[in-house]
Amino acid sequence: MLKVPNHQVAGHQAGDGKLGPLVDDSGLFYKPLQSDDRGSKEVLFYTSFSSNTNIPNHIRRFFPTFHGTQLIEASNGSGKQPHLVLQDIFSGRFNPSIMDIKIGSRTWYPQASEDYIQKCFMKDTKRSSLALGFRIDGLQIYESEGSGFWKPDRKLIHKFTAEDVRLVLRQFVSSNSSAGVDPDCTFASTVYGGSSGILAQLLELKEWFEHQTIFHFYSCSVLMVFEKESVVKEMSSGAEVKLVDFAHVVEGKGIIDHNFLGGLCSLIKFISEILTCSDVHTAKASLQL
Amino acid sequence: MLKVPNHQVAGHQAGDGKLGPLVDDSGLFYKPLQSDDRGSKEVLFYTSFSSNTNIPNHIRRFFPTFHGTQLIEASNGSGKQPHLVLQDIFSGRFNPSIMDIKIGSRTWYPQASEDYIQKCFMKDTKRSSLALGFRIDGLQIYESEGSGFWKPDRKLIHKFTAEDVRLVLRQFVSSNSSAGVDPDCTFASTVYGGSSGILAQLLELKEWFEHQTIFHFYSCSVLMVFEKESVVKEMSSGAEVKLVDFAHVVEGKGIIDHNFLGGLCSLIKFISEILTCSDVHTAKASLQL
Repeated sequence: MLKVPNHQVAGHQAGDGKLGPLVDDSGLFYKPLQSDDRGSKEVLFYTSFSSNTNIPNHIRRFFPTFHGTQLIEASNGSGKQPHLVLQDIFSGRFNPSIMDIKIGSRTWYPQASEDYIQKCFMKDTKRSSLALGFRIDGLQIYESEGSGFWKPDRKLIHKFTAEDVRLVLRQFVSSNSSAGVDPDCTFASTVYGGSSGILAQLLELKEWFEHQTIFHFYSCSVLMVFEKESVVKEMSSGAEVKLVDFAHVVEGKGIIDHNFLGGLCSLIKFISEILTCSDVHTAKASLQL
Repeated sequence: MLKVPNHQVAGHQAGDGKLGPLVDDSGLFYKPLQSDDRGSKEVLFYTSFSSNTNIPNHIRRFFPTFHGTQLIEASNGSGKQPHLVLQDIFSGRFNPSIMDIKIGSRTWYPQASEDYIQKCFMKDTKRSSLALGFRIDGLQIYESEGSGFWKPDRKLIHKFTAEDVRLVLRQFVSSNSSAGVDPDCTFASTVYGGSSGILAQLLELKEWFEHQTIFHFYSCSVLMVFEKESVVKEMSSGAEVKLVDFAHVVEGKGIIDHNFLGGLCSLIKFISEILTCSDVHTAKASLQL
């Protein structure tokens, strides 16, 4: 049985006769091939990536597993359409907090058409990409059984300034994530910190990006996921970093992806600062005991 | 006695009634303040930088020492004009090989005027900045007492492709730097490699750029300098990295300079590859002995 995914925070969404991705119960994610050349470019990327023996396994785990393409009934009722078949990265998760962060101060590649460059250029300038080297494209933060998720509207997200981004990255790992209060960053050390936390995973990715010259990942997102309930119950956050959206990947041709790497380093700095701050908070708290 | 510098590879040059920098015999470099706001912006940067106690000393050494401003007779005969007084970084050098590399895939800052952005945007696209994250802006390679320096014309440098950049970075550390032959990279391990070589210095700079959020260095250059004769005679290259040209530095406002950092990492990758290759060459050579 195919259904609309529960936990999608950005991109085209299925439902109400619209075309969007679907999932099944076996842990697969079906993404309709976009109609212009984006769909075929993403298939090309997954095909090339999954057969490339130069990708180390500790890097491969940051990418959804690729299971080829398949004709399935599209979500908009247009009949059988080609879909990418991927690992459903939220399968088995109950109440995941998710942040979708598009990396790079520019989302366009030099070979693109003038119109496309102009469109992206305007958007990158208006949103935080140009200033920060990344932008938040979507998020949901699990609050509690009673109040469910905080999932701000796209229009609100599109207005995020540097200060908003700083705040939301703190709210993401706080027990008091609602607006108007100073986020307590209670979960920062477990989710962002630690040897298997989000920062450690981003640093592993960074190390690869300092060397890899195979692909340039334009307009690609880093997903950060964890489960608040796991942190509270088991002191293990299930924190995970995944890369998604490869419709604008181009060949690296022997040059590193300095656009992605610069943005990734900027995100890493934002997250490191939250950890440093929350260390200070923890230290303060222990002094007061 | 003020005179025209012997070793300038980029920027406005004095002589023939033109305005340009001058040097004296005591090791000072006098740079005329550019007439629009660039001059005052560069003074502002040097003033702010030299008084900022958050700059570690091992980073400070990458910048020319600042000795204030002074009214001196301009090189174009226009009478006394304000000049920046800086350390002459080539003072005491005899036949330095020099490469001037402008860092960043974009040389414009978001706050600049539309006209300025458009002008830089076109240039960054035409030159190698957009593709590589940096561009070579000038160079001189010392060949021998007989043939002196190879100092390619600006028009030639402006046409450098990624492959030309790769080649020139190899020629820079070769004993056979003339065109048409495969560069032997004889000096690579001494100049680029080693604990005090250029790569080690660039990596130190990179480490600082991963954290510093004080300045964003648009249109700023990394100078790489060494002396071939020193390598041959003393097996010490005098390899040095310096940052120059700060007329387009803006405040970092708590965000890292992801544009500079990305470009710097790309340059580091190019140089690392030359070292890896020349290791291979050396290994091959020893096997043949």
